Amino acid sequence: MKGGTLSQGPDKPAAKAGAERPVAGRDPALRTFAMPRDANPNGDVFGGWIMAQMDLAGAVAAVRRARGRVATVAVEAMEFHRPVNIGDLVSCYAEVTRVGRSSMRVEIETWVERRTTRATEKVTAGTFTYVAIDDKGRPRPVDASADIPPARDP
Amino acid sequence: MKGGTLSQGPDKPAAKAGAERPVAGRDPALRTFAMPRDANPNGDVFGGWIMAQMDLAGAVAAVRRARGRVATVAVEAMEFHRPVNIGDLVSCYAEVTRVGRSSMRVEIETWVERRTTRATEKVTAGTFTYVAIDDKGRPRPVDASADIPPARDP
Amino acid sequence: MKGGTLSQGPDKPAAKAGAERPVAGRDPALRTFAMPRDANPNGDVFGGWIMAQMDLAGAVAAVRRARGRVATVAVEAMEFHRPVNIGDLVSCYAEVTRVGRSSMRVEIETWVERRTTRATEKVTAGTFTYVAIDDKGRPRPVDASADIPPARDP
Amino acid sequence: MKGGTLSQGPDKPAAKAGAERPVAGRDPALRTFAMPRDANPNGDVFGGWIMAQMDLAGAVAAVRRARGRVATVAVEAMEFHRPVNIGDLVSCYAEVTRVGRSSMRVEIETWVERRTTRATEKVTAGTFTYVAIDDKGRPRPVDASADIPPARDP
Amino acid sequence: MKGGTLSQGPDKPAAKAGAERPVAGRDPALRTFAMPRDANPNGDVFGGWIMAQMDLAGAVAAVRRARGRVATVAVEAMEFHRPVNIGDLVSCYAEVTRVGRSSMRVEIETWVERRTTRATEKVTAGTFTYVAIDDKGRPRPVDASADIPPARDP
Amino acid sequence: MKGGTLSQGPDKPAAKAGAERPVAGRDPALRTFAMPRDANPNGDVFGGWIMAQMDLAGAVAAVRRARGRVATVAVEAMEFHRPVNIGDLVSCYAEVTRVGRSSMRVEIETWVERRTTRATEKVTAGTFTYVAIDDKGRPRPVDASADIPPARDP
Repeated sequence: MKGGTLSQGPDKPAAKAGAERPVAGRDPALRTFAMPRDANPNGDVFGGWIMAQMDLAGAVAAVRRARGRVATVAVEAMEFHRPVNIGDLVSCYAEVTRVGRSSMRVEIETWVERRTTRATEKVTAGTFTYVAIDDKGRPRPVDASADIPPARDP
Repeated sequence: MKGGTLSQGPDKPAAKAGAERPVAGRDPALRTFAMPRDANPNGDVFGGWIMAQMDLAGAVAAVRRARGRVATVAVEAMEFHRPVNIGDLVSCYAEVTRVGRSSMRVEIETWVERRTTRATEKVTAGTFTYVAIDDKGRPRPVDASADIPPARDP
Repeated sequence: MKGGTLSQGPDKPAAKAGAERPVAGRDPALRTFAMPRDANPNGDVFGGWIMAQMDLAGAVAAVRRARGRVATVAVEAMEFHRPVNIGDLVSCYAEVTRVGRSSMRVEIETWVERRTTRATEKVTAGTFTYVAIDDKGRPRPVDASADIPPARDP
Repeated sequence: MKGGTLSQGPDKPAAKAGAERPVAGRDPALRTFAMPRDANPNGDVFGGWIMAQMDLAGAVAAVRRARGRVATVAVEAMEFHRPVNIGDLVSCYAEVTRVGRSSMRVEIETWVERRTTRATEKVTAGTFTYVAIDDKGRPRPVDASADIPPARDP
Repeated sequence: MKGGTLSQGPDKPAAKAGAERPVAGRDPALRTFAMPRDANPNGDVFGGWIMAQMDLAGAVAAVRRARGRVATVAVEAMEFHRPVNIGDLVSCYAEVTRVGRSSMRVEIETWVERRTTRATEKVTAGTFTYVAIDDKGRPRPVDASADIPPARDP
Repeated sequence: MKGGTLSQGPDKPAAKAGAERPVAGRDPALRTFAMPRDANPNGDVFGGWIMAQMDLAGAVAAVRRARGRVATVAVEAMEFHRPVNIGDLVSCYAEVTRVGRSSMRVEIETWVERRTTRATEKVTAGTFTYVAIDDKGRPRPVDASADIPPARDP
């Protein structure tokens, strides 16, 4: 994650809403609309829905790296800086940042493009750990020396 | 939360699968089946679905305590000790453990009853923080001195 | 079902809204939020959604008792006394009350905790009959003499 | 509903699977595929899903008759004679058979066309009662003398 | 498709909204409510949802004709003449109009019954092509000479 | 859309599966997993689901260009060259290619990254037309001279 995007918090002076951007050239691991059916009883998009999207996004990166099935084993502490609203376009960017014997650490940023203003804002970021598993659900080794470009997009 | 259930990790000698139990008398904040539509492409229940259930469960406790609308603002680090399978009965137990001016810290345990064996196992636990919000989404104070029994069930 | 909760209709003098309670110590078979996606075109939670939740809740009790797969074969007449609203916390309580050779009769009560007032109210009750089935969907015997505590919760 | 189709049980000699048919010319109130996402953990279409479809189908007929919003207030006893399988085409036929001051009794038959054999079979039937309601959810009168053809299809 | 219903465009003088009707006696291939969960962020039913219903409806006709599994291979140009609203009853009529060696051309009309006015209107029509496929997804022949009544309803 | 990607059919010699790529630098309008709940009764991802994703993807581009609400009014003929499988990562690329007074023509390509092989393949392409609409659903003008970079991604 060159350029320090993941450490670029929303409180930094340069990070005005609508001026923030993920690093150039990065492709999202997942991108979806927040739809009315994703709302909680208040009409808000609930935090759990966002975490579910991030877990899937992290799995995109982990499955590519591990060349097969993975399972989520841990999530580091995360904060929800700004709300996600119905109609926002939600993009999750994911990058494998560490590979162990069978585990992979994936950093994930979630950005929204606001429906009304087109402003783009980072709403949260998190670090998820996955393990590569075999057909029986047991950990299997990941080739750490592989020079596979991580999280390369089509 | 007498008896320290939340600190009762799955690695403790006394906590054999099927012998573990949440403390007597506790009611789940949410309880649901893991259905085929909740599976990822491997047929596994994905971690993000579990986090989404926990966020809703924590909101049950927080909404009761705050007597109104809340938003999720943070999640502490959490681990997924054991898989959730399609057909498992998933129960989330939630308890408000600290109340600030407008924030509430909620500890949440997730247990499953396995479909085939009826064994009950704790699969994960987490700590979510919510803030009480008003109609415009701005933080509002929570009455900290209230002697409302937290997370009391009907 | 001690205390005759299931026969406690909503018209009885003692059963004021918010004062009603399921018998102490009972755990719900299922508990879920009524979400916006569960609404009919009027924004009401439709009766069919409630029946679907009750059928699943009855299956929780029947699967435990039959130690395996079951199918719904009959529903007795039921009435919907009060509406369920978006945001209500919906709890279904289920108890196996009769066991035949392969059939089980399950009594199910549905209660809501109103989002705004926290009042708890019984909205409906019903009796569902399930049969235990084998891998091919054919009825299989249930051990009627078993002293398995019915509908015991974790 | 000429010919007493609703009383034509599946046990009658003439009602061989694949030979049964709803009376000529009737249009379904609802017709849908049973999809994989409608399955319970066993891969079966659960009874509650069928009841939910029937409630919606009855509402089609009741809304037409009441010329507006309705709520389900009661369901008579019903039996599930035959399973519904993933891939079956499920048709619910609904007819208003009695109109009170604000209530309507609707008889509903559910038929399937089996995916593999194209055989059509009646899987269940039920009687649902709806009341016409106003914007505040209070009962409102239905014009009983209206010569509107009940359950006429486009 | 006698009576030319499929060529009866919405711009023809005789086709006033509420006066249009699909030809007598035709049964829908699919009929469903447009529910709140089918809406886009504006609360509109989005065109893609309608196309998805039509694809399923065409598959009903194609599966009947091919007596087995089919896959969609092409869609001809189509227009959305009128909006579909939440609460509309949506009916898709489908007819196999040409059968090749393994392909089937299916014409599909989509009509709505408006919730408030009960007026019926054609909202769009399209032509979908399906191929019959075997268990491995490879094209298989369809019996072209078969005198199976196409799109006959139960 | 440099390089004529949209006219690059799957039959061209250079377009070997896994070697095809959308033009460099393009970001997807939407990217999602094909999940088990998106399958038809055969376990295939049905064409209608793909069209629904494409309609949403085209709306991303059209909403950005029109700076507000849009409705789908037409789809040109399209073909489904290759199947989408459960577990494929599905990316829809969308570009506004013509702007009229209130209408926008959007070209959309759908690519998959196969779960098992990581090969990327174009499965279909289509041209959707949207109109900008106001709060009452009536067409409103789009600023054609605007030098807003079309389909620019965050």
